[in-house]
Amino acid sequence: MTSALSTQLDALGQRARQAARLGARASTAAKNQALRAAARILRRDQENLLTANAQDVAHARAHGQEAAFIERLTLTPKSIEAMASGLEQIADLPDPVGAINGLTRRPSGIEVGQMRVPLGVIAIIYESRPNVTADAAGLCLKSGNACLLRGGSEAHHSNQTIARALHEGLESAQLPTDLIQVLPMTDRAAVDILVTLTQWVDVVVPRGGKGLIQRISALARVPVLKHLHGVCHTYIDADVDIPMALRVADNAKTQRYGTCNTMETLLVHQDIASSILPPLAALYQAKGVELRGDEATCSLIPGAIPATEEDWSTEYLAPILSIRVVPDLDAALDHIARYGSQHTDAILTHHWEHAQRFLREVDSSSVMVNASTRFADGFEYGLGAEIGISTDKLHARGPVGLEGLTSQKYIVLGHGETRTG
Amino acid sequence: MTSALSTQLDALGQRARQAARLGARASTAAKNQALRAAARILRRDQENLLTANAQDVAHARAHGQEAAFIERLTLTPKSIEAMASGLEQIADLPDPVGAINGLTRRPSGIEVGQMRVPLGVIAIIYESRPNVTADAAGLCLKSGNACLLRGGSEAHHSNQTIARALHEGLESAQLPTDLIQVLPMTDRAAVDILVTLTQWVDVVVPRGGKGLIQRISALARVPVLKHLHGVCHTYIDADVDIPMALRVADNAKTQRYGTCNTMETLLVHQDIASSILPPLAALYQAKGVELRGDEATCSLIPGAIPATEEDWSTEYLAPILSIRVVPDLDAALDHIARYGSQHTDAILTHHWEHAQRFLREVDSSSVMVNASTRFADGFEYGLGAEIGISTDKLHARGPVGLEGLTSQKYIVLGHGETRTG
Repeated sequence: MTSALSTQLDALGQRARQAARLGARASTAAKNQALRAAARILRRDQENLLTANAQDVAHARAHGQEAAFIERLTLTPKSIEAMASGLEQIADLPDPVGAINGLTRRPSGIEVGQMRVPLGVIAIIYESRPNVTADAAGLCLKSGNACLLRGGSEAHHSNQTIARALHEGLESAQLPTDLIQVLPMTDRAAVDILVTLTQWVDVVVPRGGKGLIQRISALARVPVLKHLHGVCHTYIDADVDIPMALRVADNAKTQRYGTCNTMETLLVHQDIASSILPPLAALYQAKGVELRGDEATCSLIPGAIPATEEDWSTEYLAPILSIRVVPDLDAALDHIARYGSQHTDAILTHHWEHAQRFLREVDSSSVMVNASTRFADGFEYGLGAEIGISTDKLHARGPVGLEGLTSQKYIVLGHGETRTG
Repeated sequence: MTSALSTQLDALGQRARQAARLGARASTAAKNQALRAAARILRRDQENLLTANAQDVAHARAHGQEAAFIERLTLTPKSIEAMASGLEQIADLPDPVGAINGLTRRPSGIEVGQMRVPLGVIAIIYESRPNVTADAAGLCLKSGNACLLRGGSEAHHSNQTIARALHEGLESAQLPTDLIQVLPMTDRAAVDILVTLTQWVDVVVPRGGKGLIQRISALARVPVLKHLHGVCHTYIDADVDIPMALRVADNAKTQRYGTCNTMETLLVHQDIASSILPPLAALYQAKGVELRGDEATCSLIPGAIPATEEDWSTEYLAPILSIRVVPDLDAALDHIARYGSQHTDAILTHHWEHAQRFLREVDSSSVMVNASTRFADGFEYGLGAEIGISTDKLHARGPVGLEGLTSQKYIVLGHGETRTG
């Protein structure tokens, strides 16, 4: 069985590799035409797509999936329109491919620069949301890459219908449909093989829960662009505008509970703890947020429960917040270095040097001064779209847009130069 | 045994991680002072170093190592001066750390940019050349990283003596000596553990033969910055300046045989093969280069022997060249895509569109027009120094200098903004 599956995946990979060469040389106009045509076709085929999706949803219901799962899986006319206009927005973004940077003439006579080029073949592994099929394919196409999309088996009919729209878009622009392949296999073993195909796959982007990402990271033999979890901190410094700190710390925790850039731990300088923690706790408690604190925190907040060592490294993704009172900036930096997940951390302060030190010394993919951690997002950063957020240090950190799906190669423009030294 | 070794390496890794935080915030002045002081100390301690190196060389001789190995291992007053001035050159390079790029204001009011930051802890694994100890440590220090250096056991005394000079340099600048740790363990098992320490090591740079790099790639659980091999091509197009093509193709093969950027396969357009191959073959044969060709080549070059399928993907690192006659540019591109190692490839041509297509479509870390592949090198490209050449697609491609040892994190400068959407 596995051997037949390997052969099948190997064939898909090889086709992706061949298509990638054509994707890399495709004109911007052709790529944009394919994206806009796919958007039109998604709108035109809205009824088909809703029917296919209804099949998936019925199947998921019959298998007793929970409400949140059904919600992620369900498409509506509104979410189909969002997919279509998302593709059009990607068409509107500048094409990163082919840009040449820093071309300079060297003493030998050669001119050396760097050209931005696609990565090649990108495998995206995701769970129940069918809209990822259109979003991810659009970003890969615009950046000149071929993609292998492996969505959740529960969204199979929806994903195949979206794939047909994308293929029709590619055909209308005379681009090979193999640039976007939605894997027909729905078994988990397919993923395990896919992430080892070093010859055909250049990078794997897992989008989903921690379990999926950990499994893929452990099995992968190709590079993985990922964030495992977001244990995001906000540190309120001693010298701070209190109304601003209340507003931002509230937003960072409560604007949405389930996102990776939501604050999970609040650090507060001891000199300001007694003035800021009681009113802040009142804001949180009014919204039903459970507060877990160290001793100093619990003495200032009635109703806070003692935090355990485990709390400091926990991503709650829920209305729970851990709070610690720290003696100074260094203690806050130490806490973040020890317990953080290098995702997003913010300082709220009036103090110039503290802001500068925080920006420079916190080793996270996004570091903020006087802003809500919730801003860590490709759209908020102006990338136009994102394929995910990376907490890896190599290649791309933070929200990954079109540029993160490319790399730079060196180009040398010569006039017959030879090397002597 | 292995468990004791793990504990030891874990402790070294943890110290490197702690030092890395101080390295990241170190001032440019302090880093440069440490580099310049280390250079002075290397010169001052030249006699000690020659004595330590003589021990290593005597040991290697006694164990029957071959002449080339002894040559790589041997230090001379000249090579010690080269190490010292190398450190001074690194001090003269601009500091990449802390540079902020692309800061722009977003509609929400936040300002978003990217700050260049060190990768953290870099493990460098190399073989017999002791000068790598100084070169690699210097690059890691200047780029704000901590490094764990694991040189060949045969250079143990030399490496430890160089390490003492580097530590004295760090001390003179009040920087922690743990920024540069030369591993005391000389057993191979240490390397196998080191490359799995995901908690303490951010990237591994193996420098050495294919065997070393393959073994590390297979074992590593942290990202590896590497090039496996250089099967570099030169394609001579139909429309070309013949004296230029003779000069460049000769240089690409014969200037040095053992380097990764040496041409290993020559592709020649069929329309020019009969005019260029006989004089070119004469140049090569006069230098004792063995020529292996396809049928068309063998019919044009007396003395050429038939190439096998294996030849097309072989990195000879020797006075051997494989030659193939191709019908057109597309066939050349296909050959390179199929057999190349994505290192360095060049086209020699008068033809504008062919040059443009070659630049854009060849998926290698360096792509050249009318220049010798031998130019693929950090010094020739103006990086000032290089830690190696990467044929990986993510993060850094081609020669890797200071910038390749850093990454960019997002920074957000706010004024109390909160997210609403």
